[in-house]
Parts: sequence; C-alpha cells; structure tokens
Amino acid sequence: MHHQLFARAALLNRTAEERLSYSLLYLYKACMSIMAETSNKTLSIDNMNPNIKVMQYAVRGPLVIRATEIEKELEQGVKKPFKSVIKANIGDAHAMLQHPITFIRQVLATAAYPTLMTSDLVPEDVKARVNRLLKSCGGCDVGSYSNSVGVEIIRHDVAEYIRKRDGGIPSITDNIILSGGASEAIRSSMKLFNSKVDGKPPGVMIPIPQYPLYSATIAEYGMYQIGYCLDEDNNWALDISVLKRALEESRAHCCPRLLCVINPGNPTGQVLTLQNIQDIIKFANDEHLFLFADEVYQDNIYDPNSKFFSFKKVMTEMGPPYSNLELISFHSSSKGYMGECGLRGGYAELVNVDPDVVTQFKKSISAKLCSTVLGQIAMDCVVNPPKPGEPSYDLFAKEKAFVLKTLGQKAKMITDAFNSIDGIKCNAVQGAMYAFPRIFLPPKAIEKAKERGEAPDFYYAWNLLENTGVCVVPGSGFCQKEGTFHFRTTILPPPDIFEDMITRFKAFHTKFMADHS
Amino acid sequence: MHHQLFARAALLNRTAEERLSYSLLYLYKACMSIMAETSNKTLSIDNMNPNIKVMQYAVRGPLVIRATEIEKELEQGVKKPFKSVIKANIGDAHAMLQHPITFIRQVLATAAYPTLMTSDLVPEDVKARVNRLLKSCGGCDVGSYSNSVGVEIIRHDVAEYIRKRDGGIPSITDNIILSGGASEAIRSSMKLFNSKVDGKPPGVMIPIPQYPLYSATIAEYGMYQIGYCLDEDNNWALDISVLKRALEESRAHCCPRLLCVINPGNPTGQVLTLQNIQDIIKFANDEHLFLFADEVYQDNIYDPNSKFFSFKKVMTEMGPPYSNLELISFHSSSKGYMGECGLRGGYAELVNVDPDVVTQFKKSISAKLCSTVLGQIAMDCVVNPPKPGEPSYDLFAKEKAFVLKTLGQKAKMITDAFNSIDGIKCNAVQGAMYAFPRIFLPPKAIEKAKERGEAPDFYYAWNLLENTGVCVVPGSGFCQKEGTFHFRTTILPPPDIFEDMITRFKAFHTKFMADHS
Repeated sequence: MHHQLFARAALLNRTAEERLSYSLLYLYKACMSIMAETSNKTLSIDNMNPNIKVMQYAVRGPLVIRATEIEKELEQGVKKPFKSVIKANIGDAHAMLQHPITFIRQVLATAAYPTLMTSDLVPEDVKARVNRLLKSCGGCDVGSYSNSVGVEIIRHDVAEYIRKRDGGIPSITDNIILSGGASEAIRSSMKLFNSKVDGKPPGVMIPIPQYPLYSATIAEYGMYQIGYCLDEDNNWALDISVLKRALEESRAHCCPRLLCVINPGNPTGQVLTLQNIQDIIKFANDEHLFLFADEVYQDNIYDPNSKFFSFKKVMTEMGPPYSNLELISFHSSSKGYMGECGLRGGYAELVNVDPDVVTQFKKSISAKLCSTVLGQIAMDCVVNPPKPGEPSYDLFAKEKAFVLKTLGQKAKMITDAFNSIDGIKCNAVQGAMYAFPRIFLPPKAIEKAKERGEAPDFYYAWNLLENTGVCVVPGSGFCQKEGTFHFRTTILPPPDIFEDMITRFKAFHTKFMADHS
Repeated sequence: MHHQLFARAALLNRTAEERLSYSLLYLYKACMSIMAETSNKTLSIDNMNPNIKVMQYAVRGPLVIRATEIEKELEQGVKKPFKSVIKANIGDAHAMLQHPITFIRQVLATAAYPTLMTSDLVPEDVKARVNRLLKSCGGCDVGSYSNSVGVEIIRHDVAEYIRKRDGGIPSITDNIILSGGASEAIRSSMKLFNSKVDGKPPGVMIPIPQYPLYSATIAEYGMYQIGYCLDEDNNWALDISVLKRALEESRAHCCPRLLCVINPGNPTGQVLTLQNIQDIIKFANDEHLFLFADEVYQDNIYDPNSKFFSFKKVMTEMGPPYSNLELISFHSSSKGYMGECGLRGGYAELVNVDPDVVTQFKKSISAKLCSTVLGQIAMDCVVNPPKPGEPSYDLFAKEKAFVLKTLGQKAKMITDAFNSIDGIKCNAVQGAMYAFPRIFLPPKAIEKAKERGEAPDFYYAWNLLENTGVCVVPGSGFCQKEGTFHFRTTILPPPDIFEDMITRFKAFHTKFMADHS
C-alpha cells in the first residue's frame, strides 16, 4: 500500500506541493479503506442470530467474570478487605476441593490406559469392570466413537439402575440415550418441540425460580417461556392453580406443549412430596403436556423427612391414563456424591415417547457423532457402583457416605445461619446443592440499584463480592416472583471455608442494611 | 377400569342379556380410551421440529444400521457368503484396531487418577505435564468444570501450536475455543449466522461432495445450502467460476454469508494447492463472505508433492485486504495420527471476528457449561507433543510415524486398486482418510435402483454390503454432481483386513457389472 502510494506520487511530474497533496489524498483513501476493512465485518452484532443475543446464563454471568478478575488482582497484590475469593456460584464440587470417588477414577484411568490391567495399583473388580466395558467399545478401546446413543452395555446398566431404583418397573435399554452431561440431553430433547402450531411458537413451562439452562435454551430456540411461580411460603411446592393460571395466560402467545419440573429443586433445594408429584402428573395429563423431569439431584436428599420419588415411578403406579404420559427424565454424573462435572456424563430416559419421534431424536444426535466415551464410563460407575463383597466396595461406600453426610451438615448449617440474620429468610435445603434465601432489601438499596440500572439483588450480590470476595448468583438470574429478591449460594465449599463464608456474609449483610436504611 | 366395569354391570338390576350388553359397551369404551391414550401423543411426527425431520447424516445412516444387524446375524450363525463385516464407513481409527499413542493415554490416566504420579508406570515428563495441566483446572482436578471456552493453559498451548505451525504468525489465546470435537465447534459457530436478512435465510456455501455434518446442520438450523461442485477432473480442486455461479444462483433464495472449505478434503481426499487457497481467499473477500476452514486432517498428508497450508497463514501472507478476512478454523483430536474419536477433543480459532460477536459466541456456549476436560487434555497432547530429549519422545515419534506411514501406504494401495478395476475411477488420496471413487454404473443398475426408489449408488453399496460384508457410504450421502455416482471408503482397516476388503470388492464389482449389463 505504502509503496504504491509513494511510487505514484513520485512518478507524477509535479511540484512538491502537488506531490504532497496527492500523497495526502492517497493516504486518506488508504486509511478509509483500512477502516472499511476493519469495521465492515460480514458478521456483526446487528446481523447475527438474534436469539443468541437475548439468551442469558447467569451462573456464568458478569459477577463470575468479576470474581475471576478479583482473584487475579489478589494474586498481583492489590489490597482488598479479604484475602481470597469464595466461589459459591456454581455446583462444581471438585473445584471446591471435594475428593473424587477413588473407584470412578480407577475405572477411568484403567479404561484410558489398559496397561494398568497388569499392575496392582487398581483392584481386581476395577479390572473386571473395565474389561466388560471395553468389550462393548469399538476395537475394545475408549478412543473409538460409540453409537450416537451411547455404548450399548452402559445403556443397559442405566436401564437396570432405573428398574431397581423404581422398585422393578421396567426400563428399556433402547429408550436410554447417553449424553455429555444432562444439559446436552435437555437441549437435544427440547429441540424436538420446536415447531410452530397455528403460527404460534411452542410454549415451555418452567419453574420460577428456575435453572437458567432452561430460559437460555428456550431463548436460543426462539420458543415461548411460560413461567410458573413456585410457592416460597410452602417450601417451593408447585401450586396447581398457579400452573393452571400461567398456562391459560400463555395461550394468547404460544401453543403450550412441555412442562419442565426440577426435583430436587435448583436453585430452590426443595424435594417434592409424593402428593405434589401426583398432582403435577394429573395436571400434565389433563392439559395434554409432555413432561421433562430434571432429576439430576436424585442422590442429594438431606432432610430425613424427604424422599426422592421419580416421576416415572409415580405416574406408573397411578395407572392409566397417567401411566401413559410422555416423559423424558434426566440424570447426570456431575452432581450427587460423585460431582464429576468435568467428565460430562449424563443420560435421558424416554418414556411413552412416540416411536417415530424416538427415531427422529436418535437421527438428530447422529451428526454430533457421540458423547465422550470416558464420560459415559463415569455414568456407568454411578448407575452400577461396587457391590458389597467386591474389593472396591468398602472404600466406595465410605467415600460416598462421607460426601453426603458433609453436604447434609452444611445444608442444615446454612439454613440456620441465614435464618438467624435479620432481613433474610431461607427455606430448608431438603436436597440438591443450593440455598436460595430471600433478602428483604430496604427501599434505599432498591433505589440505588435502579440508579445504576441494575436488578436490586444484582446490586446486593455485587457489593457482597467487592466487599467480602464471596461470589453468589443474584436471584434475578434465575427469575423470581416480582418484587421479591434472592440469591443462590451452593453448599459446596469445604467446612472451614464454608464457615468463613458465613462469617463474611453476616458482617456484610449487617453493614449493607445499615448503610441503606 | 375392569373393577368399575363389572361393578357397574353387576349393580344394575337387569337381565343377563342386558348385563352382557352393558358390559360389552363399557369394554368397547375402555378399549377406545386406551387407544386414544396410546395414539394421541402430545409430540408426534406431525407436530415435531420440521428441520430435524429433513436432516440426514449418511455416515450413520441405514447402511450402517444394516451392517450392525448383519454382524449380529453372523454371531447367531446365519450363513452368509462372507465371515465378517468390514466397516469402512466412518473415520474411526481405534475401532479399526489402530493402537492409541501411549503418551496420550498415560497423560489421560494420570490426570484422571493422580495416584499414578507416585508410580513408575508413567514417565517423568508425563507426570510433569499432568501437574502443569491440573494446576490450570478448578481444584486441580479434571472433575471440575472448565471455563466454557476451555482450560486456560490448554488454550494457550493451542495458540502456541498455531503460531509455530504458521511460521510465527501470532495466535491469541483469547481467540481459541476448545470444544467436544470439531463438530461441536462447527455447529456452535454456524449457529451465529442464523438470522434472516431482508426476509431471506442465511446462505452457507459447502463443497459438493461434502461431509454431511454441514448439510445436516444447515437443515437443522433452517439455513440455505449453497452447494459448489468440486472439480473431479482436476483432483477435486475448487473452480472459482463454479463458486461464483453457485453464489449468484443462490441469491434469489438466500443471503449468502458463509463459505465452508474442507482441506484436506472429506470425503474427497485432496490437498488444496497454495494457488487454489489464494484464489478462494480472494473470492471470499470479493464476495464479502465469512470463511470456515475445516482443517481437521492437517496432519494427514500422504502425497510427497502435497503440503498443508492453513487458510490463516495464506491470507495473512497475502496482506490487506485479505489478511482482514473473517475466518474460523477447526481442528480435532479425532483424526491425524492419534485418531482419538471417543475422547471428543477439538478447537476453533477465531480470526478477525468482530469482538462483540466473539463475546456473544462465548456467552452462547456458557449454558452448555464446558466440553469434557479429559478431551481438552487429549487436544493438549496433540498441540504440545513430547519434545526431543524428553523421556516420552522416542516412543511417541515412533508410534506417530508408524501410523502415518501405514496410512500413506494404504492411500496409495487403494487408489491403485480402484483404478485397476474397469468402471471405476479414483483420484489420488493425497490426504485425509478416505477414497471417493467414481463408479460408472450401467443403465440397468440405475433402472433397478429407480424401481426400488433408491439412489443408484445406494443400491450398489447395499448390494456390496449384503454380498461381501463391506460397508461403505454411498456418494449420494455426501451429495455429488448430478448424474455421477460414487462411494466413500476409509483407508483405516488394518493391512490384512484392508487387502481382504479390496479382494472382496473386486470380486463383487465384476459380478455386479456383469449382472447389470
């Protein structure tokens, strides 16, 4: 560019002034051309997928980005009124120093590197299990693609797990689809519904508050979100009259097709009662809705008076017509006592789904080839753990019990701690991994937040982070009943950090309330 | 239901005949009700996502399903004119008994089960590497979620690999996004373009023949496919006048936005020349198109006269305006010499992409949480292999060279074999893992196929499978120039099976041509 410019100017047999003028003209044109090149992108915020622009996922939103920045600032020696960041924003057990279950890791290591079969570093039952799993992999190796629906023997083990869990109600291997975490299965399943009916988008009922995977996916697919408020005063139960009203009000905007229920609840930590589940099933049947049961926290029950009932078991025992309800249930290796988030294991069970739709579902995931085989193997360890008498059993049982006991203690500790603070009210954490306390913010805090263009609980959580290093997710990221404010915190930090977190929190809250009164 | 029925009939104080009549009426109603319940699904083929219905992915289509059935039949002792099925339909190296690279598996096993750090089963450089990688994982553990874009140090290693590969041209860590295989990255990237412009869908240019991930994703997203035929007579080069014509013809139906190029080619096995790549870049620039470079076979070059040039390097060296072209390049751990398909490792490099779009892209993948951390670690091993002098180097170099040498031999062997057969013409397999020979089918074969409502090469491939057990994918699954017929076979079967496959193939082809002449 420069060469051309000066060559052209030099070649012209003109005065110095004219040459300068030409040079300036060319320089100007060159600059304009570069600017056009750099700003005139073919893909810009104005012409990109509009659905992606509106989707939000608060669990990894601006507060989390700021928390990471603060961590770096602390490393660089920036002075803060705290010495560490406590990330209580995401259900990520191992990041919170929970020890992995030895058995799962031995199986993974041996499957990845079968030379370990000849070592005494792994017990015999691990070797036998890996042998059995590898026989079901292409070329007896985890480096081969599996079928898109997953490794056959693992799907079989999942079906067997469900059958036993549900007291003998049959589960069919062919209806099990393994996936890269439950999220992937939920997204693929929801995609099936994306068809306009009478020009209206499909409507998806989700709890308010909800896990933002749902709102994000609905937005991305351009579907219509039908929120139904959980009853905070009744420990986040589903009030059928509220469901009914939300459904009726939505009909002007969409064709309602799908009801999503999260049990145990995220972010709300409740465990649904048998009666409540039966009522929900009746409602879905009466309203001709397809049901998604997000049951990834089925192992995380802490309240001795609560029990996990799978939607499949309840509806099957209710008999026709309820036992014919179309249902997809989801589970994961990321939660429970194992907390293997990074391995990306999960599954969906399809119940009463139209066989033609099942065929289309399986085809739709085939272009993605398959989910990670090592993640599938992690899922196998969860659904088919060591049995009493096997060499790995004692350690496995001990590790599992320890994790669940510790989580149970923290579930109680956090509820008690929050409820001892003025201006905070927290339902019992019966299950899952979260508390979702309500904060009664003074008008001055709400005003200040409005001035800054922020949701009031975002303003609260931002201040909490900047002043204490504790990172939680504002309730607005999960949606909440209008005029109420909350935040979600996990119960995952290890006991000493957990106590530190509560101490920091109490001090902050008292000062915040005083500053804004 | 039955109780009610008989109770009601019994209670009625009528004659036996009347009671029977009532019973029959109730029985009829009960049956109708059950039928209504079972057939009246809320989600059916008629009201499901129409885009999913039209998408197809031939690499895992009906022929592959039939091949698996035949395998089971053989196991059950059903007599066939062959003793085994040879699956040459999918680029799945380990399923074809290729040995995994020891180094990669040692790293994976140690990362999953760090107790191996204290054993002498893995070399010291593996331990050091795992230590370095785990430090970048949450809680120093692979069971934690990574950032949605991937583990920071692995993104850094990818950028460093690209920089070295491209002779020092800078690559920025922040522009690297790790993914569950290249497929996932391609699908997430393509989703960004899904916006109507002046009421028209976005147009995506893809080669014909193409890898069906592209056509399947375009169909799923409801985008418009603009096929451009590769020039078979010129070793599958891209003819710019053909590109231009395809683009112009598409404008009535769509707003063209994206040009996808696969180099080395799948299913076509060509390696693009530097001149051809430069011409493509000029075309994309002139036509204001965004470029996707699918470069997952960059390590698979067999022809000594061919060389891999990355699109990024070529366009950067061409200078402005070409160096400002918007590009996303994709790579994977599934191909090359490692063939680690089941681990799901991959990455995308975003070049010159609008920063606002990059932000939206990162947000859009955050709800999926992250790709598998062990898959990311496999990708790290690929971009940052052992260096000369390190304990793992010699074995690594030997294993890598062996795989590539064997693939090179088979690439030549298969081309020679096909070209020695009357009625078949096969371009040189310069790279990738496939041959895509053209078959000159006699009119009688084409007629027979039409009678059966099948594509002629599907009919041919189906007969090949039923008569010889060899499973290939018909050319129609990849799209092809009208009136031409092909099939894709991998070059992956181990040498003895590979020779057996060619022998079976030759015998079949001769007989097929005779039967249909």
